[in-house]
Amino acid sequence: MGGQLVECVPNISEGRRGDVIASVADAVRRTDQVRLLDVQSDASHNRSVVTFAGRPAAVIEAAFALCARAVDLIDMNAHRGAHPRLGAVDVVPFVPIAHVTMEEAVALARTLGDRIWERLRVPVYFYAEAAATPQRVRLPDIRKGEYEGLREKMADPAWAPDVGEPISHPTAGATVVGARRPLIAYNINLKTADVDVARQIARAVRESSGGLVHVQAMGVASEGGQAQVSMNLLEYTSTPIARVFDAVRAEAARHGVEIAESQAVGLVPLDALVDVARHYLRLRDFDREQVLEARLME
Amino acid sequence: MGGQLVECVPNISEGRRGDVIASVADAVRRTDQVRLLDVQSDASHNRSVVTFAGRPAAVIEAAFALCARAVDLIDMNAHRGAHPRLGAVDVVPFVPIAHVTMEEAVALARTLGDRIWERLRVPVYFYAEAAATPQRVRLPDIRKGEYEGLREKMADPAWAPDVGEPISHPTAGATVVGARRPLIAYNINLKTADVDVARQIARAVRESSGGLVHVQAMGVASEGGQAQVSMNLLEYTSTPIARVFDAVRAEAARHGVEIAESQAVGLVPLDALVDVARHYLRLRDFDREQVLEARLME
Repeated sequence: MGGQLVECVPNISEGRRGDVIASVADAVRRTDQVRLLDVQSDASHNRSVVTFAGRPAAVIEAAFALCARAVDLIDMNAHRGAHPRLGAVDVVPFVPIAHVTMEEAVALARTLGDRIWERLRVPVYFYAEAAATPQRVRLPDIRKGEYEGLREKMADPAWAPDVGEPISHPTAGATVVGARRPLIAYNINLKTADVDVARQIARAVRESSGGLVHVQAMGVASEGGQAQVSMNLLEYTSTPIARVFDAVRAEAARHGVEIAESQAVGLVPLDALVDVARHYLRLRDFDREQVLEARLME
Repeated sequence: MGGQLVECVPNISEGRRGDVIASVADAVRRTDQVRLLDVQSDASHNRSVVTFAGRPAAVIEAAFALCARAVDLIDMNAHRGAHPRLGAVDVVPFVPIAHVTMEEAVALARTLGDRIWERLRVPVYFYAEAAATPQRVRLPDIRKGEYEGLREKMADPAWAPDVGEPISHPTAGATVVGARRPLIAYNINLKTADVDVARQIARAVRESSGGLVHVQAMGVASEGGQAQVSMNLLEYTSTPIARVFDAVRAEAARHGVEIAESQAVGLVPLDALVDVARHYLRLRDFDREQVLEARLME
């Protein structure tokens, strides 16, 4: 088959010191067969998000190299920031992109978790699809108490780490590792400035209030002053972009409002675009293997 | 910028002897930084189409290696086949795919043409976007008289080759080299078996009878028995798939017929899919750089 592709998006607890961020990113860049795609730092959160991708074996190497570098350079005892966090490497999600199953991504998370404990002596929790129990699926639950509360949290047998002894690393705390589906951040701007209309549409289309599964949505004002339905599509393979667009369009029409435009924020997997073409062009027997650039990647 | 990508689709005059076809394809496969994408042979045409792609410098190397191998192995004096042809390497088009201008593709054609004459002593005609005169734009005009008529054709000063002396190579004839836009072979099946409806729609949407520019179309019966509008989209960047689909849908509606499904035959460039998403989702500020897989190729 060929063309296996997995994405990894570690969040590290450093968003201010450029030399540290560069050094951590460099650990990824120096790993063979892996492409560093993006580094986004937030000074007020004092946190950076590193995005890279490649074949599974190479991505594991890069992820571990990044963890080792971050544990080496970041002292959580000196860390202050607006975003909740447990450790120097706060969270490492693996995201299957192409020809990789969720089970394989979970296995990658487990392999990395074991290695982080064995070689770095940082205890590990598994979350999302890699979670060992329902209580550990959601990141906010695992992060509760944060780095400063780790000693107390780990003293509770219910919060013993999934890998390693229940002892917070003296400078790096603990790390959360897991696997999740890729998500698409997708916003639709309306031909109205009435944010209340966007809020009503958001309520109608999102999972939490009876709409489409795997869709999170809220109504906000866009930078341009238009009302915006701002969404996360958590499973674009089962609830594709086109279905969400059509649902928002239908709800907007009930309010007598049209869609002005839409935006995808960040990277979009090719399969999501293939789905859009399949939907609107009623394309038969078409898949990513027919996209010239995808063939080149195999 | 990075990510330069050009496709090359040589047609060679051998579609029967598997060892010769494999050897010619192998000349491409052995070239660094080039991906062999497809080899299609037609025994009755006695002709093979080789498709490969990569960065411009590597594609030139692969194209020349293929030409040298084909000139070495194919004797046109023994060649019989249903498809018109001028030489062992009949035609070599360069197709700009990403971050490559048509001017650059034309320059590649000129470079290859010079090298074919200098090293292989095969005279070269330039066609399509690389044509030196309007009389040499279309392949059928250049091919008229075929291999067997080359001596007579070249004796006419109007048909002197663009590169080299007006003497047909004793076993390899002449070669046509050029540059063209990528084309998309795209068929739309209708919810009717009435081929006459497909013919009327084809006439309404194609350039030659007053429809959309850069669209060739005909009405045929599909394998499944549905009437089909079978098309070549010659410039999907200016006349995108979505516009063609919408035009066919509107024409079909005039006949009270709906679209059943559509099919893309062969490889589709990523930019064509990006256009589809832009069109139907009204996507703003979205380009190929936001597709995860395209970023990986840079």
